[in-house]
Amino acid sequence: MTVVDLSNNEGANIESPVASAVIYVCTTCRRPTDPEDYPRPGAALAAATIRAAENSGVTVQPLRCLANCKRGCSAVLRRTDPAVPSWTYVFGYLDPAADAEALVAGAQLLASSADGLLPWRGRPEPLKRGLIARVPPFDFSEQSE
Amino acid sequence: MTVVDLSNNEGANIESPVASAVIYVCTTCRRPTDPEDYPRPGAALAAATIRAAENSGVTVQPLRCLANCKRGCSAVLRRTDPAVPSWTYVFGYLDPAADAEALVAGAQLLASSADGLLPWRGRPEPLKRGLIARVPPFDFSEQSE
Repeated sequence: MTVVDLSNNEGANIESPVASAVIYVCTTCRRPTDPEDYPRPGAALAAATIRAAENSGVTVQPLRCLANCKRGCSAVLRRTDPAVPSWTYVFGYLDPAADAEALVAGAQLLASSADGLLPWRGRPEPLKRGLIARVPPFDFSEQSE
Repeated sequence: MTVVDLSNNEGANIESPVASAVIYVCTTCRRPTDPEDYPRPGAALAAATIRAAENSGVTVQPLRCLANCKRGCSAVLRRTDPAVPSWTYVFGYLDPAADAEALVAGAQLLASSADGLLPWRGRPEPLKRGLIARVPPFDFSEQSE
């Protein structure tokens, strides 16, 4: 199992395992206390995540709705390389001003996992408290868990 | 892995209402008011859904956790034929005694949708009020929405 130690990722361009993962960020999300104005806090989270993902190998794909509207801001993580069938993770309650780096770190952690599961250990705190759901890989059966 | 390429299936089964979809039902789910005993209400929902799906063409796959634990009972719907890239839907707040048929009807609705999206119109009520999140198809980009 290869685990990227994110604490050592500062500075130099890491040539270690390519983080092949995507973060979908909902641009229409707002928190229950936010006004309904546009652009929404979700758009700010998407922009911050795009910046945070520069040179990380992680793809950021803004989209319009993840249907997690009551629990925004929202994002989805998925590994994209086919080598390891990946679970997909839905997160909510994200802070657009603070949680972009956590999303990128989580995507790298998922991309480097040996079993396609996002480990709890080492997972950034916003991706612990903000966990909404996980979706199995396409051809999942319980036997393969 | 078995993938049916519907685009090459001309002449075979095209006319029949093949509901090519899967329902993943969390067997460890319980509602906040339920005791922590096993078997959990999620297991009852899984069993009821398997019964409801008989002869429907819908596959039911019980699994141990969808990480939607605070909002159980939980299930995920996904179209399985590759002809139309499908969104994946997460539902919560399901009633194990009442909502199995709604899951099967929802799976059939998704399987027959032209765009891989579960329409709101015609969607069973438990899949409206219980919507937790939706996850885009594997190769989704906003342009394809």
